[in-house]
Amino acid sequence: MWIKNCWYVAGFSAEIGQTLTARKFLNQAVILWRTSAGNVVIMEDRCPHRLVPLSLGTLVKDQVQCGYHGLRFDEKGACAHVPGQETLPKSCQVKLFPVAERHSLVWIWLGEADIADKALIPDLHWMDSPDWTVSRGYLRINADYRLLNDNLLDLSHETYVHKETIGSGAVADSPVTVTVDGGRVVRVHREMPNIDPPPLFALVLNHTGKINRWQVAIHMAPGINMTEAGVHPVETDRALAHIIRPLHLLTPETEHSTHYFWGVPRNFRLDDAELTVQLQKGVAHTFDEDRDFLEIQDRCLQAEGMPSIPQTAVKVDVGPVQGRRLLAALLQREKEDPRAVHPPVALADDSRVTMPPAL
Amino acid sequence: MWIKNCWYVAGFSAEIGQTLTARKFLNQAVILWRTSAGNVVIMEDRCPHRLVPLSLGTLVKDQVQCGYHGLRFDEKGACAHVPGQETLPKSCQVKLFPVAERHSLVWIWLGEADIADKALIPDLHWMDSPDWTVSRGYLRINADYRLLNDNLLDLSHETYVHKETIGSGAVADSPVTVTVDGGRVVRVHREMPNIDPPPLFALVLNHTGKINRWQVAIHMAPGINMTEAGVHPVETDRALAHIIRPLHLLTPETEHSTHYFWGVPRNFRLDDAELTVQLQKGVAHTFDEDRDFLEIQDRCLQAEGMPSIPQTAVKVDVGPVQGRRLLAALLQREKEDPRAVHPPVALADDSRVTMPPAL
Amino acid sequence: MWIKNCWYVAGFSAEIGQTLTARKFLNQAVILWRTSAGNVVIMEDRCPHRLVPLSLGTLVKDQVQCGYHGLRFDEKGACAHVPGQETLPKSCQVKLFPVAERHSLVWIWLGEADIADKALIPDLHWMDSPDWTVSRGYLRINADYRLLNDNLLDLSHETYVHKETIGSGAVADSPVTVTVDGGRVVRVHREMPNIDPPPLFALVLNHTGKINRWQVAIHMAPGINMTEAGVHPVETDRALAHIIRPLHLLTPETEHSTHYFWGVPRNFRLDDAELTVQLQKGVAHTFDEDRDFLEIQDRCLQAEGMPSIPQTAVKVDVGPVQGRRLLAALLQREKEDPRAVHPPVALADDSRVTMPPAL
Repeated sequence: MWIKNCWYVAGFSAEIGQTLTARKFLNQAVILWRTSAGNVVIMEDRCPHRLVPLSLGTLVKDQVQCGYHGLRFDEKGACAHVPGQETLPKSCQVKLFPVAERHSLVWIWLGEADIADKALIPDLHWMDSPDWTVSRGYLRINADYRLLNDNLLDLSHETYVHKETIGSGAVADSPVTVTVDGGRVVRVHREMPNIDPPPLFALVLNHTGKINRWQVAIHMAPGINMTEAGVHPVETDRALAHIIRPLHLLTPETEHSTHYFWGVPRNFRLDDAELTVQLQKGVAHTFDEDRDFLEIQDRCLQAEGMPSIPQTAVKVDVGPVQGRRLLAALLQREKEDPRAVHPPVALADDSRVTMPPAL
Repeated sequence: MWIKNCWYVAGFSAEIGQTLTARKFLNQAVILWRTSAGNVVIMEDRCPHRLVPLSLGTLVKDQVQCGYHGLRFDEKGACAHVPGQETLPKSCQVKLFPVAERHSLVWIWLGEADIADKALIPDLHWMDSPDWTVSRGYLRINADYRLLNDNLLDLSHETYVHKETIGSGAVADSPVTVTVDGGRVVRVHREMPNIDPPPLFALVLNHTGKINRWQVAIHMAPGINMTEAGVHPVETDRALAHIIRPLHLLTPETEHSTHYFWGVPRNFRLDDAELTVQLQKGVAHTFDEDRDFLEIQDRCLQAEGMPSIPQTAVKVDVGPVQGRRLLAALLQREKEDPRAVHPPVALADDSRVTMPPAL
Repeated sequence: MWIKNCWYVAGFSAEIGQTLTARKFLNQAVILWRTSAGNVVIMEDRCPHRLVPLSLGTLVKDQVQCGYHGLRFDEKGACAHVPGQETLPKSCQVKLFPVAERHSLVWIWLGEADIADKALIPDLHWMDSPDWTVSRGYLRINADYRLLNDNLLDLSHETYVHKETIGSGAVADSPVTVTVDGGRVVRVHREMPNIDPPPLFALVLNHTGKINRWQVAIHMAPGINMTEAGVHPVETDRALAHIIRPLHLLTPETEHSTHYFWGVPRNFRLDDAELTVQLQKGVAHTFDEDRDFLEIQDRCLQAEGMPSIPQTAVKVDVGPVQGRRLLAALLQREKEDPRAVHPPVALADDSRVTMPPAL
């Protein structure tokens, strides 16, 4: 249900320090830590001696010391110390995972280690560019990550689930245009001219009159999502729009739980720290609403034995359906060739304000 | 383990209004609601679009609106609105269940829909007759409904489990007479002449001297039970007895949980509202004692893989054993013919005070 | 995973009185009670009538009365009373288990009943000898009992897990000598001369200067453990050492939970009641630290499908490895002959201070 030969987000760079952080990705328990030289290390969270989690131990001089019998492992995973004896058992080795840091994020590669090419990391430069200011957050959702992708590829749910922040009747009522790019990316575009601004946009625009709004749900399989939103008062030019490019970075934890790392870059009021916090809170509230729904949906589907989502004659389903197809193709490719890799595709072009596909 | 071609109690009429109530019966999740015209509707609690529970949505003008993407369904289960499009997908249909209201109860039919004949609803007129005043209540017991039937068919447990309300040594010590009627009803009759009144009967009689008491456990498979109790001071005539006819209306929720709707009709002090409340509290307390036992019994049996209850040489087991036989016969009949129905049998005759079978 | 033809500790004598105590051993639920004549009875916690736990009932005149329908069973497990009838059903019988009391402990035999020879009870006379004063306690650990044995056979964990009471670097750094005795007992001896006393030993010696310390982990399969500790100031003679002989009496409850009855006999300050309490608290704290680790270890192993613990080139593993071998041999023997018994071996010799194996 998930591909392995790709980079998944493992955390924010800022949260990984000289202490052990325990996480699970694709059912693999790991610890993340940073050496005194500044390198992030990700290794299996399991002492090869008595099989207890290394995360119960501590970091001692760039070595992980098991909390049970004191064995130590260095940043290569090699056993560096056994209390009470001189010889070091070579077979006593902790598995390492390829790791990278880019765009203020820590990335992990869970597939074949020798093909972990950093050129395959998706371009998410909005996360650390001086032209954008970012609000960030994290939540864990007890649901299959594919349901989260479905949710992000059909934003008509905003009208019903997110009435308090970004939803309004205009979202569900406006038609969408769907395009597929490079076997990796689906884009679902929707224009909403001359509408009343939902609460969160009234806040960021500081404007309660009519606005033009557009929205593009961009999904790069298996778990990178950007939901660009542009808004501007009807009397102003599109080129001057306020744009946010929320990034929803999904990494499966287990079959039925997902890490949801997110950042909301904006191209306006870059130095307004208060706005950064307001956006952080508003978006966190919005995603909590998604979580409630997605967790119930997952439980219901589990109770039914995880049936396929039915394909009904509902137009807004085109986005989620295309997203599932891209994922199925990647899974099939990796099944046929366990060393297959999947080059990323650019999510958005900064050089111009995003235009609808037909223009 | 349960028959489907019969009417099960789904709730009290008074609790179903113009709002969505979610319940599960025989593992089937449903929503119950009432149209503005006053009709109760029961439909599957599952949106055919993305399979989330409709109970997360709201009722909008006699239509159920899904809380996720806003699809609406009318009281026939047909899709009546899809946001953003004109055409309505005909295949997008919510399953309806036959429903009836009678005796202040809502009834659901979970078997073959076209044979749901309202003439098959059991006669429980004591629930809404002017000659009886009813205390009501509900509890959910995490146990196989068959254990609840067993419990109601062997009331000797009152002596040990219900010492504080209706139990006394006389119950367990008095012999029973068991009769079977129409392949659907078991009656277990017990006379207890000249005994001290247990607390709840001393309360309803307002009398602490010796009484005559009788009790009839009446079980109509699969889940309708009446446990008539008659009491009168020894110096008065049986025809003047105070009678209560507690109805225990059991609807399986899952294999190991049961809805327990109950009413306690009485034929005396009809206008005494305080007594109605006292009986409500006393009976609720009594049933809570049953629940504790039944839930432990179910867990123990589950741990043993649900063995058959042993048939020991204990006389009071005749009632439960006969009840299980009736159920087995109904299950067998429905297995042989999925369209078989099971006509109800009258539980009790109001025209005279219930007499022991031999008289 | 466990042998049956041996005596397991079922409780402390002092806690079993004329009331019902419910426990589970090797997945067998039982009740323990004491007759008015003072004999302990252990019987299955299951009424043969409706299969509810007898522990929900009460003791009535040396008979167990079921809390559901009032059947009574005597100390032989025979049905002694059925309410409402004269004849007693002979087949209605509760299973009894062989029981013994020795060394202030209650013992149960869960194997073939007719070979339950009291001569097979291990000698734990330190628990009730006038030459020793005992602190006692109990905890339940949600882990496979074999992990508890492993833990007690490799005390190098004290350095890391029990820093606050009995651990110091000296434990993990000192080499061990392992001996095996009689196919039933493993001893792991460790000398730690001229060290700083860990907190609990500074307390019992009332001395913070250098000490000599030794420690012997003695394991009698399947679940009897003694971890003798001797300490004395370096300037005094070994023969005057303060000795504690903690007994860790492990009885599996289920595959993943263990009863941990313990006593800490000491040979010094026998009348110091305050010290008895201090030791009780210190040891209880220490074992709670073990519990945290062992429960996590068990959960991790369960998630991996209970793999064998790897055999790594770590010297302190010799003790646990030998312990597992003894257990495997006993299991194999009992598999080949379900009536095989396993004679106990003396744990320690009181006539002299324990000396290292080589001296």
